[in-house]
Amino acid sequence: MAKTAKIPVGILGATGMVGQRFIQLLERHPWFEVAWVAASERSFGKSYEEAAKWKMKTPIPRRIASMQLSAAEPKGAPKVIFAALDADIAREMEPAFADAGCAVISNSSAFRMHPQVPLVIPEINADHLKLIELQSWRRESGGFMVTNSNCSVMGLAIALAPLQKAFGIESVFAVTMQAISGAGYPGVASMDILGNVVPYIKNEEEKMQEEAGKLLGKLKGREIVPAEFAISAHCNRVAVEDGHTESISIKLKKRATSEKIIAAWREYRGMVYDLKLPFAPADPIFYDERPDRPQPRLDIERGHGMTVSCGRLRPCSLLDWKFTMLSHNTIRGAAGAALLNAELLKARGFLG
Amino acid sequence: MAKTAKIPVGILGATGMVGQRFIQLLERHPWFEVAWVAASERSFGKSYEEAAKWKMKTPIPRRIASMQLSAAEPKGAPKVIFAALDADIAREMEPAFADAGCAVISNSSAFRMHPQVPLVIPEINADHLKLIELQSWRRESGGFMVTNSNCSVMGLAIALAPLQKAFGIESVFAVTMQAISGAGYPGVASMDILGNVVPYIKNEEEKMQEEAGKLLGKLKGREIVPAEFAISAHCNRVAVEDGHTESISIKLKKRATSEKIIAAWREYRGMVYDLKLPFAPADPIFYDERPDRPQPRLDIERGHGMTVSCGRLRPCSLLDWKFTMLSHNTIRGAAGAALLNAELLKARGFLG
Amino acid sequence: MAKTAKIPVGILGATGMVGQRFIQLLERHPWFEVAWVAASERSFGKSYEEAAKWKMKTPIPRRIASMQLSAAEPKGAPKVIFAALDADIAREMEPAFADAGCAVISNSSAFRMHPQVPLVIPEINADHLKLIELQSWRRESGGFMVTNSNCSVMGLAIALAPLQKAFGIESVFAVTMQAISGAGYPGVASMDILGNVVPYIKNEEEKMQEEAGKLLGKLKGREIVPAEFAISAHCNRVAVEDGHTESISIKLKKRATSEKIIAAWREYRGMVYDLKLPFAPADPIFYDERPDRPQPRLDIERGHGMTVSCGRLRPCSLLDWKFTMLSHNTIRGAAGAALLNAELLKARGFLG
Amino acid sequence: MAKTAKIPVGILGATGMVGQRFIQLLERHPWFEVAWVAASERSFGKSYEEAAKWKMKTPIPRRIASMQLSAAEPKGAPKVIFAALDADIAREMEPAFADAGCAVISNSSAFRMHPQVPLVIPEINADHLKLIELQSWRRESGGFMVTNSNCSVMGLAIALAPLQKAFGIESVFAVTMQAISGAGYPGVASMDILGNVVPYIKNEEEKMQEEAGKLLGKLKGREIVPAEFAISAHCNRVAVEDGHTESISIKLKKRATSEKIIAAWREYRGMVYDLKLPFAPADPIFYDERPDRPQPRLDIERGHGMTVSCGRLRPCSLLDWKFTMLSHNTIRGAAGAALLNAELLKARGFLG
Repeated sequence: MAKTAKIPVGILGATGMVGQRFIQLLERHPWFEVAWVAASERSFGKSYEEAAKWKMKTPIPRRIASMQLSAAEPKGAPKVIFAALDADIAREMEPAFADAGCAVISNSSAFRMHPQVPLVIPEINADHLKLIELQSWRRESGGFMVTNSNCSVMGLAIALAPLQKAFGIESVFAVTMQAISGAGYPGVASMDILGNVVPYIKNEEEKMQEEAGKLLGKLKGREIVPAEFAISAHCNRVAVEDGHTESISIKLKKRATSEKIIAAWREYRGMVYDLKLPFAPADPIFYDERPDRPQPRLDIERGHGMTVSCGRLRPCSLLDWKFTMLSHNTIRGAAGAALLNAELLKARGFLG
Repeated sequence: MAKTAKIPVGILGATGMVGQRFIQLLERHPWFEVAWVAASERSFGKSYEEAAKWKMKTPIPRRIASMQLSAAEPKGAPKVIFAALDADIAREMEPAFADAGCAVISNSSAFRMHPQVPLVIPEINADHLKLIELQSWRRESGGFMVTNSNCSVMGLAIALAPLQKAFGIESVFAVTMQAISGAGYPGVASMDILGNVVPYIKNEEEKMQEEAGKLLGKLKGREIVPAEFAISAHCNRVAVEDGHTESISIKLKKRATSEKIIAAWREYRGMVYDLKLPFAPADPIFYDERPDRPQPRLDIERGHGMTVSCGRLRPCSLLDWKFTMLSHNTIRGAAGAALLNAELLKARGFLG
Repeated sequence: MAKTAKIPVGILGATGMVGQRFIQLLERHPWFEVAWVAASERSFGKSYEEAAKWKMKTPIPRRIASMQLSAAEPKGAPKVIFAALDADIAREMEPAFADAGCAVISNSSAFRMHPQVPLVIPEINADHLKLIELQSWRRESGGFMVTNSNCSVMGLAIALAPLQKAFGIESVFAVTMQAISGAGYPGVASMDILGNVVPYIKNEEEKMQEEAGKLLGKLKGREIVPAEFAISAHCNRVAVEDGHTESISIKLKKRATSEKIIAAWREYRGMVYDLKLPFAPADPIFYDERPDRPQPRLDIERGHGMTVSCGRLRPCSLLDWKFTMLSHNTIRGAAGAALLNAELLKARGFLG
Repeated sequence: MAKTAKIPVGILGATGMVGQRFIQLLERHPWFEVAWVAASERSFGKSYEEAAKWKMKTPIPRRIASMQLSAAEPKGAPKVIFAALDADIAREMEPAFADAGCAVISNSSAFRMHPQVPLVIPEINADHLKLIELQSWRRESGGFMVTNSNCSVMGLAIALAPLQKAFGIESVFAVTMQAISGAGYPGVASMDILGNVVPYIKNEEEKMQEEAGKLLGKLKGREIVPAEFAISAHCNRVAVEDGHTESISIKLKKRATSEKIIAAWREYRGMVYDLKLPFAPADPIFYDERPDRPQPRLDIERGHGMTVSCGRLRPCSLLDWKFTMLSHNTIRGAAGAALLNAELLKARGFLG
């Protein structure tokens, strides 16, 4: 009976890397249950096991392995949809599901900057959900759309949130060293990245810069007023499997000491702490005192991949402070982010 | 006869990674000939082949393989010494050789910031050699000391030099992704770097910041007045064999266009172009138009490892411009740098 | 009360890579509790956190972090000792603990081939424990010694065990591709393994060949009669973090089909299945049907690192059959192996 | 004039990885000159620079960069064609060029086992070229086809050739650890190989087994009688950029000592030594005495990538001897092999 009480969810783009993460993370979820998986036409009708090149380190959940892939159409789909689609496809397909009354919880970039679509990290801007009520889908069919940010800006925004609140942020410099899993599968060719650095990820710097403003922006009336700090990003790909590491410098509006900054991180609980969401980490931010940390190979699993790690806080001779930040790009930065958004939606009554 | 006319040189620290590069690069040098190799006491008396764990991709030159390792003492050493020592050892040993009348061409950090020791990149500050005449060694024994910079600041300084001249530099932000060969052998443990990023290299950020000022500083009377720009560095180690990649943002004093910046790089010949030094690259700087370059695996050998590659010049929303820079850390950034310094010294009559 | 009922254990070599695995794996063990940690003199008196360069992906257990390192002497040590020592040190230190009445459960190679010391993999030769009664330590102080095999032969022996029983084994060809973690820390230099293969691991081929015979040998009277098959091993190091992959060919004494071999693997439960040892995997061997498996990055965690994966069974044109085998070198091949041995000892009443 | 005397050659599949190697290796060839490049329809009409994702470490030769890609049709193509095509395409396209009177020097697997097509490594079976006269293309149009072997069997065959001659070979066991460049571009996904081993390369073991027999076979009358030794191969992919490493065991027909085997390798000159072919290495085989060599990262460039390195010769407890072999998979194993075949054809008068 407990089992039947779970909310059935569907996954669009279920066979891709983020889709696989959804399936992995949802395996024993207390509130949600995968009831429907869809992928491209090529896979339609096959079993999930047959269609997916499973790349997770845990086995395919048995129940999902034999599940048949559905066509990617709202007909017959559950009312809660996790969407792990490429932006081009998402642009057409996600509105179709919202039109049909579905809650579309999207990981794609297609609608992140749409003025009525909330771009949500529960800890830092759960209140942005109010935008949902302005969506025409919501009024017409009850459906709506919520998005999470790009994987490279997610950890940055979380690390900045408590500092913005405590001291105000004037400017941000961020250089990423991003993992290959962020590019999907087959994604980055091994000839391009083995023993190498690729100093370019298409559109990534632009996404980081615009999404940071919306994530840390304020809901005023019917719109999000973006945070006003200046931000400059350089994005690089490195030979790391999971985990985006970033070298960050910041200028604050108010004077701060390193003790106060570290305290702000350590004490940070965010907006949803009291909701006890199952996927919310005990500590959204962990500050590591060790001089050579955080490191992706060692620290990426902290908080089941949902805790952002910071370290090496020290004065910056150009701005005020510099530090290293690490976050898990396919958990905190993608599937886990969407899942946490879904939990927030449920807690706030949006999922019926 | 041509052969006997070559200047005999010695190598201190000949068995280490930089020492091996010296031996590789000097194999067919038109002016210099390795006549003496020294290493730690442990190796004294062994043949070079026996003592060195040779890690270069070309074979040990036959003549060197059977050369016996000497004690690291001035007695019996040639008058031109390339020093590839750890800073702690260099601090004691290099002055002893200068005292004994040797030209010490050092790759170590021990005396880089000494006010009478020139820190030289021939293209950008060959005139700093004048400091030699102020050295007490020079007056007393004829010996002297010249240094090259840290491997992570070398390429940066070269990329900045033409911009400093054309536009003036106000501030610099540099994040490095440094190769493992920079740490010597055994150096970085594989457990630490395989599939990983280590966001810390001891003292590296400090060296980059102080050495950049001296390298791009001006000789006024009897001292170097450091360049006055502000600079902030973040140093990271990545799983790359050779080649330091850097994400750089700069603020210029005068307004520039991207065309003018690229032209300044492409036209840059530096102070020693007319000397036709054997190891000086035809182009000190190469600007690559391709959107995803430079990359260490593909571009590091340009100009036999002596050309600095720049790419991805684009506006920076915080400072003025941002770009990627790549340089070969053990050639342009270490052994090749010292060798070019030696050639400059020879051309300027300092080597007798 | 349940807690105080746990058996206190000590760890010799607690700060090394295998020592760290012991601490990680013992964190929530139902029967054992780390009560004492010792390392080299250099660390004596420090807290564990201070002395160990912790390289596990889970945090140091809080209780252990603050535990003080003891001198590596039997005085004050618990009666059950896990030893993760280099062979040279083990040769002196392990007998001292056995002399003092301790159960020494060793991962070192020092005494593996000693005729009275059992070399145990519980599933395949739990009966070899009887050798303990022949040990002079046992008679004199009650102490004794039990060892586990080299990491590269462990998975091989497990894969062979059911085939030996069902069909008999005549000869074995095994080529290893071994992970860097097997060499400890700092272990393999990154300059040696990044983008490389090193076709040599000192003494490894000899260990594989002699230990395989003892592991699969039969206890007859007071001695182990080694299994009589011929075995030839080639050992290579590859750029993999955890997990030894092996290409294996075998000649069987009786004719077998691939179906029968796979069935023998799948049905294999081993000698200790009924004991329900906490660390024994549900399946000692997993046969993977997928054509390109097992792979270390994806399959190493199966059975919490205790299940051996086999795949690609196909005819061999030289011997009879060939297949790929993968096992976790620091869990099934080291710390987990010793832990399972300890559980077996406990179940059989050897730990008091 | 010397320049106009060069033989114009065309490259089919010029933009792929092997095609790029052809262009790199032919840049300063004394006999041949690239006059025509062709690739898939998608590239037709573009400049080479535009169409190729150039992945070599030397720059695109200037003359080639601006060369326009032709359609892959015999019309207008030179009479000497290097073919670097996928087998499926080669199966249709190569005969069309031979029909049109071209000398097709192919790197593909499509016709390697065809009874009238010689599979040639000049050092070991230059006499197999006589098969050309049996080809119907030769009789009808003057065109013909010559192939080189798979990259994984090339080095093996060269290492076996002198042993076959001196001692006779009874059986061969070979386990490969193959570089990613062998799979072309994009080829192996980074998610599949970073920190991993993939124990499967489609059809590779079959190719090794059948091609070894033909390569070391004897021309008798109008056919090649395959060498009769038994051979078993296991093929693995590892995270290495260039260079296939192989663990090999062999059984010889006559008794040999390690001294005699090493001497056979060192003295081996092969069938074409007197021809002084430009791309033939001084030593087809180099035996390395160092205990941990050969290694791909360090030894792959020996003989400009054309020398096969052997090492670690030692007794095998199953067959007679075991050793490690390394060869450059895209030079000796592909483009360099075809180029050497072309030189042999020229020297023997087949290219007019």
